[in-house]
Amino acid sequence: MADIIEDTSRQIADMTIRGAGKIARAGASAIGEFAGSYRGGSLEDFLADLKSAADRMISSRPTAVSLWNGVQSAVRGADGASSLEEARALVESNARRFVESSSKAVQTIASIGAKRIREGDTILTHCNSSAALGVIKEAHRQGKSIKVYATESRPWRQGILTVTDLAESGIDVTLVIDSAVRSVMKRIDKVFVGADTITSDGVLINKIGTSQLALAAEERRVPFYVCAETYKFSPMTIFGDMVTIEERDISEVVKPGEVPDQVKVFNPVFDSTPGKYIDAIITEAGMISPGSVYDVMVRQLGGSVFAKE
Amino acid sequence: MADIIEDTSRQIADMTIRGAGKIARAGASAIGEFAGSYRGGSLEDFLADLKSAADRMISSRPTAVSLWNGVQSAVRGADGASSLEEARALVESNARRFVESSSKAVQTIASIGAKRIREGDTILTHCNSSAALGVIKEAHRQGKSIKVYATESRPWRQGILTVTDLAESGIDVTLVIDSAVRSVMKRIDKVFVGADTITSDGVLINKIGTSQLALAAEERRVPFYVCAETYKFSPMTIFGDMVTIEERDISEVVKPGEVPDQVKVFNPVFDSTPGKYIDAIITEAGMISPGSVYDVMVRQLGGSVFAKE
Amino acid sequence: MADIIEDTSRQIADMTIRGAGKIARAGASAIGEFAGSYRGGSLEDFLADLKSAADRMISSRPTAVSLWNGVQSAVRGADGASSLEEARALVESNARRFVESSSKAVQTIASIGAKRIREGDTILTHCNSSAALGVIKEAHRQGKSIKVYATESRPWRQGILTVTDLAESGIDVTLVIDSAVRSVMKRIDKVFVGADTITSDGVLINKIGTSQLALAAEERRVPFYVCAETYKFSPMTIFGDMVTIEERDISEVVKPGEVPDQVKVFNPVFDSTPGKYIDAIITEAGMISPGSVYDVMVRQLGGSVFAKE
Amino acid sequence: MADIIEDTSRQIADMTIRGAGKIARAGASAIGEFAGSYRGGSLEDFLADLKSAADRMISSRPTAVSLWNGVQSAVRGADGASSLEEARALVESNARRFVESSSKAVQTIASIGAKRIREGDTILTHCNSSAALGVIKEAHRQGKSIKVYATESRPWRQGILTVTDLAESGIDVTLVIDSAVRSVMKRIDKVFVGADTITSDGVLINKIGTSQLALAAEERRVPFYVCAETYKFSPMTIFGDMVTIEERDISEVVKPGEVPDQVKVFNPVFDSTPGKYIDAIITEAGMISPGSVYDVMVRQLGGSVFAKE
Amino acid sequence: MADIIEDTSRQIADMTIRGAGKIARAGASAIGEFAGSYRGGSLEDFLADLKSAADRMISSRPTAVSLWNGVQSAVRGADGASSLEEARALVESNARRFVESSSKAVQTIASIGAKRIREGDTILTHCNSSAALGVIKEAHRQGKSIKVYATESRPWRQGILTVTDLAESGIDVTLVIDSAVRSVMKRIDKVFVGADTITSDGVLINKIGTSQLALAAEERRVPFYVCAETYKFSPMTIFGDMVTIEERDISEVVKPGEVPDQVKVFNPVFDSTPGKYIDAIITEAGMISPGSVYDVMVRQLGGSVFAKE
Amino acid sequence: MADIIEDTSRQIADMTIRGAGKIARAGASAIGEFAGSYRGGSLEDFLADLKSAADRMISSRPTAVSLWNGVQSAVRGADGASSLEEARALVESNARRFVESSSKAVQTIASIGAKRIREGDTILTHCNSSAALGVIKEAHRQGKSIKVYATESRPWRQGILTVTDLAESGIDVTLVIDSAVRSVMKRIDKVFVGADTITSDGVLINKIGTSQLALAAEERRVPFYVCAETYKFSPMTIFGDMVTIEERDISEVVKPGEVPDQVKVFNPVFDSTPGKYIDAIITEAGMISPGSVYDVMVRQLGGSVFAKE
Repeated sequence: MADIIEDTSRQIADMTIRGAGKIARAGASAIGEFAGSYRGGSLEDFLADLKSAADRMISSRPTAVSLWNGVQSAVRGADGASSLEEARALVESNARRFVESSSKAVQTIASIGAKRIREGDTILTHCNSSAALGVIKEAHRQGKSIKVYATESRPWRQGILTVTDLAESGIDVTLVIDSAVRSVMKRIDKVFVGADTITSDGVLINKIGTSQLALAAEERRVPFYVCAETYKFSPMTIFGDMVTIEERDISEVVKPGEVPDQVKVFNPVFDSTPGKYIDAIITEAGMISPGSVYDVMVRQLGGSVFAKE
Repeated sequence: MADIIEDTSRQIADMTIRGAGKIARAGASAIGEFAGSYRGGSLEDFLADLKSAADRMISSRPTAVSLWNGVQSAVRGADGASSLEEARALVESNARRFVESSSKAVQTIASIGAKRIREGDTILTHCNSSAALGVIKEAHRQGKSIKVYATESRPWRQGILTVTDLAESGIDVTLVIDSAVRSVMKRIDKVFVGADTITSDGVLINKIGTSQLALAAEERRVPFYVCAETYKFSPMTIFGDMVTIEERDISEVVKPGEVPDQVKVFNPVFDSTPGKYIDAIITEAGMISPGSVYDVMVRQLGGSVFAKE
Repeated sequence: MADIIEDTSRQIADMTIRGAGKIARAGASAIGEFAGSYRGGSLEDFLADLKSAADRMISSRPTAVSLWNGVQSAVRGADGASSLEEARALVESNARRFVESSSKAVQTIASIGAKRIREGDTILTHCNSSAALGVIKEAHRQGKSIKVYATESRPWRQGILTVTDLAESGIDVTLVIDSAVRSVMKRIDKVFVGADTITSDGVLINKIGTSQLALAAEERRVPFYVCAETYKFSPMTIFGDMVTIEERDISEVVKPGEVPDQVKVFNPVFDSTPGKYIDAIITEAGMISPGSVYDVMVRQLGGSVFAKE
Repeated sequence: MADIIEDTSRQIADMTIRGAGKIARAGASAIGEFAGSYRGGSLEDFLADLKSAADRMISSRPTAVSLWNGVQSAVRGADGASSLEEARALVESNARRFVESSSKAVQTIASIGAKRIREGDTILTHCNSSAALGVIKEAHRQGKSIKVYATESRPWRQGILTVTDLAESGIDVTLVIDSAVRSVMKRIDKVFVGADTITSDGVLINKIGTSQLALAAEERRVPFYVCAETYKFSPMTIFGDMVTIEERDISEVVKPGEVPDQVKVFNPVFDSTPGKYIDAIITEAGMISPGSVYDVMVRQLGGSVFAKE
Repeated sequence: MADIIEDTSRQIADMTIRGAGKIARAGASAIGEFAGSYRGGSLEDFLADLKSAADRMISSRPTAVSLWNGVQSAVRGADGASSLEEARALVESNARRFVESSSKAVQTIASIGAKRIREGDTILTHCNSSAALGVIKEAHRQGKSIKVYATESRPWRQGILTVTDLAESGIDVTLVIDSAVRSVMKRIDKVFVGADTITSDGVLINKIGTSQLALAAEERRVPFYVCAETYKFSPMTIFGDMVTIEERDISEVVKPGEVPDQVKVFNPVFDSTPGKYIDAIITEAGMISPGSVYDVMVRQLGGSVFAKE
Repeated sequence: MADIIEDTSRQIADMTIRGAGKIARAGASAIGEFAGSYRGGSLEDFLADLKSAADRMISSRPTAVSLWNGVQSAVRGADGASSLEEARALVESNARRFVESSSKAVQTIASIGAKRIREGDTILTHCNSSAALGVIKEAHRQGKSIKVYATESRPWRQGILTVTDLAESGIDVTLVIDSAVRSVMKRIDKVFVGADTITSDGVLINKIGTSQLALAAEERRVPFYVCAETYKFSPMTIFGDMVTIEERDISEVVKPGEVPDQVKVFNPVFDSTPGKYIDAIITEAGMISPGSVYDVMVRQLGGSVFAKE
């Protein structure tokens, strides 16, 4: 295996490189570099080696949707090339394009999302999503006078990070406990949240409590926007794969000895929000309906989507 | 003013006597005792003094619905009596009946509510309501095998009290954070919560987060039961009075210095759940629909309901 | 037939006396006066004559729910009297009480309803209901700063009367066309409308467009209040009677020649709003749920409700 | 035990007397006759013997709501009597009134319900309810031109009885399979069904499939009417008693050998419909909201409702 | 700037050319003619000049979605051409195809939509949409017997135009005031409305009152169809642009002096209908779900959609 | 006409070849073989003959969506070929690909769908769909412990086939009558049904009762999955064609003489389920939202979709 592939895989595996966007770009870059420096052999050899490289890279973090997307974006179409040179050039340019587009995705999303915010709006957000906060801060930067409510987001209380970040940006921000979401909804003009994963049928997987926010927003017809780079879209869900929702340790919720030993704690990290509660998903490819997720996936991944079967 | 009235009023005012049920019974008892020991004077004198005594008593905790109910229950019908003796006897027996009925209300509710729980049910509860826990523990005592999920109930985390109480009773109990309510609803067979106040049009005022639970239960048609002594019914709402929802201090939610100074915290104690999300209200007068609250109020308070206008 | 009965019936029939409240009070008064001045005869004679008088009175405007209620309120319980004197006295006092209670009903409703309005609220109203406007003006009189949106209420455009009345009272009022109701709902805190008739199962019959307002309010969980004197409750609906919704002339909607002759115009005066869209009905007997209408009817009319069968 | 009590109890137990209405009237009559022929003893003796008689009577069919209601209606108020004679007379007249009122209940319901049907309406009904069919046939008898859709009502296919009955009455009737309910709903103006039991919080227990009809009606806002004699109201549910839904034998659904032995068949007789899907309940005491069930129960049973606790 | 570009821009700016379809076709034609007559220069020169021409053209009516679509359709793909000739030919053929397709769009929509109408259907329409009326008239032309309800559509009362047009076509048509929409919905089989703009996430912007119609249709599951040429789809919304809803003058709603001066009038021209209330959008590219709008946009505009970022 | 076309058409017409998948593959194969063996003539001749062959083939079963899809898939793109050879080769390879892809479609769907089933799930299915049963049996084959409820599916009772098939596969299966669907829904984790046809706006046409299942699943947010090969997608619906729902004979529902002659029986074969009740459609092209149906259609059929206009 080429050094670049091995090195990058190891750095991803040992968390030297981390963060959904960063590992995706590192993986795509490595594949591009691998193709650019590929020497000798036939087209067939190259395609076989490319497949090995891609598999190795993905195996460094097999559950990371973004890495899968980065690698697949790099290799897409290579098997349709008519010469080794064409295949190598295609992979290099694929990788370059993915890195560029994903690098500026958060910024593009901020620019698109900020247009949805009007002067005087009150926004509700949950947890601590850089894409969602990017939208809010961009609107503020444009001089719009806005107010923000942020949930505490137990158990990790990422809401503390969110309110600190927003307050330091000079934004009027109020913290509420998670139980106050429905109660506060009558003051809210729009909801912006991030995404961990989005499935091919338009379901949002995100921080526990998101679906509860969406349901309360739906009850009052408050627009509910999801801010998500398209590398959060999970092509594996096209093939029916379930998104596994991790349950975490009791110690995140209670201190040792705080409750009797026989008390259990159910502590899921994420929940799932049906597409019908989502008004729009704001991506770097534009603002779309949950019904368009499959379309965007196939458009971006092309033939490689169907490679797996 | 008679000593018994003065003394009891002071003890209620200075919190020597406290708790919704206790102050109601103390107030009613005092009025009964006042009537029993009333000496001299005409029926007219008695009625005037009775009114003063009732007003004094209520003024010791003017926002307590239960006290108002206890006092009104004691005096009801007195103005229709045809002799002093009849009036005095009526007030005494009214007071006695109220004390008896309210004393065993929690137990009666437990007995009624436990019948709604089937072998194998999984129950969700919120905060720490003695009426709701009474129901759950009675079902367990009857030998039904049940599971309970209890919310943490930020910011005071009364859920810790709830899970400790239930675990010590030998019940299988699991704690979840407030954001996990919609996520956990798919495992729940029935919801039981308590009440702070219930209005004449069937609205439930209860611990913040209750309405969110009710909405998530409604989404999946999980039966949502409210356990409430009838002295939680607010006759003042018949006259349109709004139930004021207290907002409490920022320090209940964040530690000093945890967030920048300009961050606000919105910290309401209660929220309000519309009657259409409530399957039944379980009271010591039976299991009723939210549409029957006014009926029960009038039946219990009789003519005195209309006295205020 | 006694002169008072004949005279009052004629004045009601020829519209000398008109308005829902006025005819109800005139009818009840006449029955009371008839009883007070009744001379000679047995109890049996009196009851027979009373029934004739009541029938005659009601026949002067057979579709007026308020008249029916006024007359029935006057005669209730008479057939249970044990002597002529008791029966006569009962009818007289019944009539007096109905007149008093109904005279101040609008004012009582205003007082109850105004408590539901908070400082800073924005209210939506429809058509031109004196009970609903009473509530709004009382809140303003109490010094609450409020805004009101009023619909135009085609075809008669009673909204012009409403906005003129409110503006002259010094209230900040904005007119919208009927099509803008859902669009404007996001600015509204509470809806207050009047009632033409309310049925025993809690359905509101009111000016065409009311149900559309209720549906749009429901969609956003904006509280929807109905302001109605209890003589708007239709006891006939207990017996299943349908409330007939009048259709009026094409000329109310289009000018002659404005559309080709073969164009039809469907011009109903009222529509019907299901109880589940109504948060509360504000009456002079208090604020109730639509599920309590039957209870209030039976409580007010007593045995006479069942007399009809 | 008096002969009349023993004889009637036996005839109810051995099904000589059967049918919800018939056993209720037989039970009430027997209690009335028992009181009428009671000889010797004090008031206390009478009340004790009356209680034994009532218990014996109810024990002859302990799960029959109607029998319970009949017996309780007969004894209500007896414990408040001030003399043996008063108590005996009261029970006799109670029993007589119950028999009269319940005898004509179906006819009264038909008369009330038929008013809800307009010329040209298309009605949907389920199973084979004499109260619901009484309404439909009364509307036809009045000369209204109507159409009826009736479900097959597997597994017993009582729909065959229904369509035969209606067709023989000259009514235009169409049979549909149970799966076609939602599909046919767009042609339906009103739904009329019967009731097995109605609970104190307004829930309808009726033939399996009823709740599915109600849900499909709700989806299109087709009015859903329940036709029920008030002796179908279950006072036991006031005390929280669950209505047990019987499951019946596999042989009602499949023929022997039609499916492999290991196939199970779930064959419940009834299902439960929440009150919010019910527009009105038509009873012999009038047309009410599901929110008024408790009110009607307490009004009819008086103090005896609370006797059980 | 070429004459054709200048002339056409001026005619669009001064309203000589107007109407959504006409300005789109004029803009596309002018761009095509500009390309066809382009002389001298390199491919780079041509692309730069083409961009200027497109910008100039769009600036003549910057808020017109249809013009933007026409111009973008003409230039799409030019930047991918490998020679000047290829680029010129592509723009010419693009322009020709857009003109052809958009010219017959209304007719194609009529042909598709008419198939959704069955013999005997009753249709509801709002305002005065040529696409929606095209559908209705085509169904009538095919000999289907239909009835139409049309709203008055205050304040301009375009319903008068609609009923006149339909009546003159021999169609059975009934006018209703805007408040009667929910009331009349029970008679309606299908709703057909036009569109001002459709956003990338499937939201319909159309004449005020449209969303109210959609909500009332949803309540009864009456199919709600939108008839829209694809040049009504707003690609700018892909980038998050809000569709601004114009508010118009008070004089459109009230006559001078009709209301006191301090009365305000809120008079928005359009409202917005969420995609979930829309059963299908009928376009010249076929009948689609609101979830397919983004897909159709990208398919029609190709790479140029992404050019803007 | 070539022999292969004639022969295959006849075999389809006379039912020698039948089943949605088989006729589609036979039609596509025949077109492919026709192209492969085409001799002499120009490209133009070939395209004209190809069109005749396609028309002839489709006419052998004009209402079969799958046949239409098979034939269109075979000819797509031929009119864009630049030589006879290219066109012939394209059609041959199109046909081959369609046959391969559709042959394994049920198996691919089983593989995708089985991933949606978790250990311990309880599944509900309706009628007898090979695609839906394939999913269930694949999950069982993978060793997941599952339970299945199957509806009887009157009138043909295909549920008997379903429970027999599943029981013979060793799966724990329970039969319920169609009326028990809402009642049993509280035990169900997921619903899997098949499809007869799916329209371009995401509506499912399937066995009568399917929409009722979907509504009951929606009420409790039980995921509702449709299993459908993409040749069940109806491209004709893009052009607005209504899917005709066949009504079948009374004898399927009642035996001769079982009901009086004047009883009608409404016996539709299918019903239609709106897209908003469908969580995902599982196809051999992946798991999609109902909003992606148009996208998949256009992607698979390419330009030929637009050929019809």
